[in-house]
Amino acid sequence: MGESHGAFVMGHDRDVLPFVTSINVACGFHGGDPTVMRQTVTLAAMHGVAVGAHPGLPDLLGFGRREMAVTAQEVYDMVTYQVGALEAIASAASGIPLQHVKPHGALYNMAAVRDDLADAIARAIRDVDHTLILMGLSGSALVRAARAQGLTAASEVFADRGYMADGTLVSRSRNDALITNVDLAVTRAVRMVSQHEVIAVDGSAVMLDAESICIHGDAPHAALFAQRIRAGLEAAGITVQPLGARSLAP
Amino acid sequence: MGESHGAFVMGHDRDVLPFVTSINVACGFHGGDPTVMRQTVTLAAMHGVAVGAHPGLPDLLGFGRREMAVTAQEVYDMVTYQVGALEAIASAASGIPLQHVKPHGALYNMAAVRDDLADAIARAIRDVDHTLILMGLSGSALVRAARAQGLTAASEVFADRGYMADGTLVSRSRNDALITNVDLAVTRAVRMVSQHEVIAVDGSAVMLDAESICIHGDAPHAALFAQRIRAGLEAAGITVQPLGARSLAP
Amino acid sequence: MGESHGAFVMGHDRDVLPFVTSINVACGFHGGDPTVMRQTVTLAAMHGVAVGAHPGLPDLLGFGRREMAVTAQEVYDMVTYQVGALEAIASAASGIPLQHVKPHGALYNMAAVRDDLADAIARAIRDVDHTLILMGLSGSALVRAARAQGLTAASEVFADRGYMADGTLVSRSRNDALITNVDLAVTRAVRMVSQHEVIAVDGSAVMLDAESICIHGDAPHAALFAQRIRAGLEAAGITVQPLGARSLAP
Amino acid sequence: MGESHGAFVMGHDRDVLPFVTSINVACGFHGGDPTVMRQTVTLAAMHGVAVGAHPGLPDLLGFGRREMAVTAQEVYDMVTYQVGALEAIASAASGIPLQHVKPHGALYNMAAVRDDLADAIARAIRDVDHTLILMGLSGSALVRAARAQGLTAASEVFADRGYMADGTLVSRSRNDALITNVDLAVTRAVRMVSQHEVIAVDGSAVMLDAESICIHGDAPHAALFAQRIRAGLEAAGITVQPLGARSLAP
Repeated sequence: MGESHGAFVMGHDRDVLPFVTSINVACGFHGGDPTVMRQTVTLAAMHGVAVGAHPGLPDLLGFGRREMAVTAQEVYDMVTYQVGALEAIASAASGIPLQHVKPHGALYNMAAVRDDLADAIARAIRDVDHTLILMGLSGSALVRAARAQGLTAASEVFADRGYMADGTLVSRSRNDALITNVDLAVTRAVRMVSQHEVIAVDGSAVMLDAESICIHGDAPHAALFAQRIRAGLEAAGITVQPLGARSLAP
Repeated sequence: MGESHGAFVMGHDRDVLPFVTSINVACGFHGGDPTVMRQTVTLAAMHGVAVGAHPGLPDLLGFGRREMAVTAQEVYDMVTYQVGALEAIASAASGIPLQHVKPHGALYNMAAVRDDLADAIARAIRDVDHTLILMGLSGSALVRAARAQGLTAASEVFADRGYMADGTLVSRSRNDALITNVDLAVTRAVRMVSQHEVIAVDGSAVMLDAESICIHGDAPHAALFAQRIRAGLEAAGITVQPLGARSLAP
Repeated sequence: MGESHGAFVMGHDRDVLPFVTSINVACGFHGGDPTVMRQTVTLAAMHGVAVGAHPGLPDLLGFGRREMAVTAQEVYDMVTYQVGALEAIASAASGIPLQHVKPHGALYNMAAVRDDLADAIARAIRDVDHTLILMGLSGSALVRAARAQGLTAASEVFADRGYMADGTLVSRSRNDALITNVDLAVTRAVRMVSQHEVIAVDGSAVMLDAESICIHGDAPHAALFAQRIRAGLEAAGITVQPLGARSLAP
Repeated sequence: MGESHGAFVMGHDRDVLPFVTSINVACGFHGGDPTVMRQTVTLAAMHGVAVGAHPGLPDLLGFGRREMAVTAQEVYDMVTYQVGALEAIASAASGIPLQHVKPHGALYNMAAVRDDLADAIARAIRDVDHTLILMGLSGSALVRAARAQGLTAASEVFADRGYMADGTLVSRSRNDALITNVDLAVTRAVRMVSQHEVIAVDGSAVMLDAESICIHGDAPHAALFAQRIRAGLEAAGITVQPLGARSLAP
């Protein structure tokens, strides 16, 4: 959320907010700007939704979705910078602390498979505020790095994205990257939480931990997906609450 | 200081550091970047120099020196963002807290004369961390706004800049904007501190408070000026120390 | 048009295109990017619509609508750069030449009243391609500068903006900046063309030349306004055609 | 050359210009800005030096040296944009046409080995101005793509860079990336031109075509290297002249 930039509007933040418990707020590099960040955390506070930082690569034109040959040190620095900026804005605007950090786009994907970048992100969070939950793709290097640094990790799954057999997400350049059928997304979400698995594009079952389910706020039917997935989870007897409200594996 | 940006080197930071007690660190908008910020605060910590944030306008190409029609709300947000980013980097990199905030360039000049912008900056500092000292041009709206918000203000003077009769700085577009003679700069600095006045370009005496003397780190002879001015002050029996080490008017 | 930037979508280009004869294409500074520029000129070529460059200030975050203290030389350079970039893209993508140049936002407004900036823009166009039509606010310094440099000028009027008694546009910070009633916009447009006048916010009649009528592509009902204004003009017996198709005062 | 950006000075342009016959001018993406571009082409015209465009990736912070996952279409568009911008500035400022195009940094390196990006660049040049010479690393995909599109190609070699056995440059992350001994650089340059070969880091001889020898304007001793290499070539009876002055293989 909060991925608009000046006059450039992105996402359906107000429509999605009623149905989620935690949001990831862009920090100005791939999207967002200081004013949008303040407006977004103010809105989250009004809805009682927990706020996390969503640091990205310095590539506004590419919306942080193009991989860049950044070093681990650059990643450490850019994450520290962005988390600190949002922490100050959240504190000044609404007095609420950050709950978590989730890297965005290509940074998230690179940190899922590269130990050096995952470690850089985890060290940055540890050094800025070691009480922040670090969210990463279930089974990823980022989740491992978070735990290695003594942070609380949250394993994330995607109800609206296809999975490869190795547990990584299908690249957005492929046709089967996105799940556009809402019923299918609901079914997958419930299965992920209840049975700890998802069916990959090759038909195999991938084991995963579903401590958080991502909804993309910029998808055309984001609010519908959020509403339906939440309802589906609750119908299956699953409690939906902010990350900080339950005990996650440290 | 810390105004380099990636491969673009700006300033003479290492040469100037031995002679100053406080530095203003660029925060990525008019100069600086996350990596340069970390390197700069690390260097400052090694020299025992106090660190302040130097937030600027979002105009890297113009180095934050071109006035822009920003709103008070935008200024509040951009200052919160930049101070928070540096605070996180300083904390993570060196464990040292920020001492002060000094706006940069056109933002500094606009806040010297416009009450709405001065107030926005003072409120941002109050909301981020009310123990930060807010530095502004002696006699300016910014110093007044800081005190109105209950912040500690530091009145700044410039040994290497010409003054107008109203106490504002001569515009950089004029030939007499800069004092390039180091002896003259030393004489002016001592007079500012001892006698609370400076001679303006029209020959009149301007009253001022010299709680901090600015040296521009990007000037060609920055280190020489810093060394000579410090020596001149000490020869006149004036103690040079970080802002936080003395009691400033709240 | 073409003001989207990467994943950030701006405007209703496809809806508006059928009803206009000339478009202004953003050139990457206040909006647009190389890929969007190519897509936009390709679309224009398919619709047989004439293309002009829409150079803006280097302020993506502010969408080029915040005045900046740029020098005349900087304006000359940034206009040359942006027009050249679009000219190459239009030539490569569709083989069509540019028809005109219209500055964007704050650059347009500053050039309406400041002779030095108007002159810089006119000289840039003269030096890049003196056959380009330079479009400016009717009665503005920009139209005068264009003619002084031997360029063909086009006087522009706004059907969806309020006017001050001096012929400048009402600032966007005021409530009466925008005409949101489409019937009123149609009436004003026809009157501007037929009777060469518009009623200002103080009730006075302002004389103007309506050689081009601007529709803002990013306004919520842009396509409706374009369609209705065009129909209204044609119903009044006015022929709507690209600038290059008629003889304008040199 | 022309890689400075606003107040951020980069390179030793004035010192190097007397010793070279062609320069590559940054176009605002990895370095440069419209004003610096005008100043650089004006300076080149005064020295009678041929001008080429030096388009780079949209990564000012990384100086265009970090690989990014750009698509072939994005590369086509960004090259068209940058070449067009410089062409307009060169034409307006000095009346001189561009001689050539040489991609910068990571774009150059990616285009040396990836056929899709090499092809995109060659098509962009063909579509903007097919008389422009396209310069690429000797033996690279870019040189092949240029010829495939009917362009004149110029094979470039580097006197100050180490070579891998496959003819690519040693990565800047390695210690042996740069040749810092000027005598060695001169010897290598003469051998490249006279004997069409260079000794790679593993001791093997790499065959190459040396139609242009690159000097990095931002290297600390750029002017010395330029002067000494030119003198060494002339002492070996080799004529040094702009690319356009000789017949290159189409």
